Amino acid sequence: MVNRVFNFSAGPSILPESVLAKAAGEIMDYAGSGMSVMEMSHRSKAFGSIIEGAENDLRTLMDIPDDYSVLFLQGGATLQFSMIPLNLMVDSFKADYVLTGSWAEKAAKEAEKFGNVKIAASSKEDNYTFIPKLEYSDFRSYADYVHITWNNTIFGTKWPYIPDTGLIPLVTDMSSGILSEPVDVSKFSLIYAGAQKNIGPAGLTIVIIKSNLIGRAEKRIPVYLDYKTHMDNGSMYNTPPAWNIYIAGMVFRKLLSEGGLQAASERNAAKAGKLYDYIDASRLYSAPAAAGDRSIMNVVFVTGSEELDKKFVIEAREHGLIDLNGHRSIGGMRASIYNAMPDEGIDALISFMEEFEKKQS
Amino acid sequence: MVNRVFNFSAGPSILPESVLAKAAGEIMDYAGSGMSVMEMSHRSKAFGSIIEGAENDLRTLMDIPDDYSVLFLQGGATLQFSMIPLNLMVDSFKADYVLTGSWAEKAAKEAEKFGNVKIAASSKEDNYTFIPKLEYSDFRSYADYVHITWNNTIFGTKWPYIPDTGLIPLVTDMSSGILSEPVDVSKFSLIYAGAQKNIGPAGLTIVIIKSNLIGRAEKRIPVYLDYKTHMDNGSMYNTPPAWNIYIAGMVFRKLLSEGGLQAASERNAAKAGKLYDYIDASRLYSAPAAAGDRSIMNVVFVTGSEELDKKFVIEAREHGLIDLNGHRSIGGMRASIYNAMPDEGIDALISFMEEFEKKQS
Repeated sequence: MVNRVFNFSAGPSILPESVLAKAAGEIMDYAGSGMSVMEMSHRSKAFGSIIEGAENDLRTLMDIPDDYSVLFLQGGATLQFSMIPLNLMVDSFKADYVLTGSWAEKAAKEAEKFGNVKIAASSKEDNYTFIPKLEYSDFRSYADYVHITWNNTIFGTKWPYIPDTGLIPLVTDMSSGILSEPVDVSKFSLIYAGAQKNIGPAGLTIVIIKSNLIGRAEKRIPVYLDYKTHMDNGSMYNTPPAWNIYIAGMVFRKLLSEGGLQAASERNAAKAGKLYDYIDASRLYSAPAAAGDRSIMNVVFVTGSEELDKKFVIEAREHGLIDLNGHRSIGGMRASIYNAMPDEGIDALISFMEEFEKKQS
Repeated sequence: MVNRVFNFSAGPSILPESVLAKAAGEIMDYAGSGMSVMEMSHRSKAFGSIIEGAENDLRTLMDIPDDYSVLFLQGGATLQFSMIPLNLMVDSFKADYVLTGSWAEKAAKEAEKFGNVKIAASSKEDNYTFIPKLEYSDFRSYADYVHITWNNTIFGTKWPYIPDTGLIPLVTDMSSGILSEPVDVSKFSLIYAGAQKNIGPAGLTIVIIKSNLIGRAEKRIPVYLDYKTHMDNGSMYNTPPAWNIYIAGMVFRKLLSEGGLQAASERNAAKAGKLYDYIDASRLYSAPAAAGDRSIMNVVFVTGSEELDKKFVIEAREHGLIDLNGHRSIGGMRASIYNAMPDEGIDALISFMEEFEKKQS
């Protein structure tokens, strides 16, 4: 009997049990191949089907237009922070960044190495509790791209709208928001996401990029950092993170079988709504994120007392509710409730919160 | 009942069955944590023990001196091809490369983007069948480093000696040779290896580097490409490929429990010796690699007829002997017999070779 906890970690994070069970069952012998996916040549037919299937299923799930490339890369969002300016900041050498959290700051700071970065807007002075309302005129029309962070894992906010950047390519870090709801991919020129939230195990990064933006980097770019290297070789210029892609593929298939992203979005809205409603009605807890800008993946809340917050996290852990601490940079609490978090996890959390609140009064 | 084949793939490649079985057993609940290693925060105590244990066990296995850092990275040897010059080619902006195969060529070609590369020696004209004999005077004394490829996966050769580079830092790609036998790490300034041969699943790269070489890259280096980023953060500046590190850690422990690299070396020499002896005595097969320079990990052989080579590979597959084809760039056959290949695999291969030879006469 396996004893599973409710894992509220922000990433790496909870994966669907059925996917883990399937992976365990075929770990020694994948589909009659007599070997594990971890042992399989990436040039084999079996792995070819895995990576092709994963790409096709992701294309279906997100309704990715044909003129976009889907790349399976390594190095996390952190490597994308460099690859994006190195590949896209090639005309005016200028890019506009919107700061809505720590990851946006890191992305902007890295881009400054490679060109001129303008902060188009920032909610830093308000502790990143909201998403700025921006119009086309807020961006430099000659910028090579605009960068936003779709879902802010640490602060629990999410862009409630896609900003109008006109003809300026719009780039987004969607690490903690991808696959949580339908988004109009055609509005973006590049979407990137570390796998370790809604996709699969850490070590895989997905890049969805308008193909005509690829191939414009300067010649001295490190070969791995050129999107063209990966587009031209079907993400197999070098050995890809095969196991991670295999797990991701199973997650995609599961989402498809459950009604795709529209259905996922409804489940997520219901789960997050239940939790926010409880928080808003409570006397003890409050959620700092602005009502219209709240994340449905990362629910950030506080008691108002640092000491009590710490106590909450420790006692929750004793109740099998794991990693409810806020990011070490801001403290408080954070419940990351990705696609794989079952309703039972939300209910268990709310029950615990009620119990904890009662004990304080 | 699981039906396992003998997997002679050059990488990704065979892993120890006991490691796979253990991974399967704890995939839903690692060590009572109630979650998979794939789901675990990399900041958790449980993962902290995994990565620390893996590093310590690797240090013990390879007898890595204390003034070396061990880094767990992503991006494969391909990313190292860029990271090495970007981090080390910082004084004379010159480096000497020895060409002993296709991967050495790729490494040198990438380094040319960042400085002056001299080919100190090459066995290309002889189809990379041997390792050049080099002395200190063959290198430029003012070079920032000398780069060699320890084991040449495609051509089946291995350096039978460590070249004397005096005070010039010696850098080696040890992807397909690491952990196959003891090496004197102190003779190298940097050893790097993709995991997907003797270590674990693809998606992890190990770098063993003299710590005082770190921190000298120019400021505009992409943050992920600076070894300092990873040294200063215990390989956790960003989320590491946790599952890959976990599997690697189990492989390290297994090797330690079986007598370390000296014992592994004896097992590998016996396995490779048996196969080479059979090939050398045969009328049909021959191994092109020079006798003193043969790899004990990748045994390359041919029949002399391309058509027969192809037939061999297909029929071998039907006998459960998988991926015996040579690299697509050179054809022929290649048996990759990494640490995890059991004696039974060698025996089954030799039996099949005998049978195949008989049928041809």
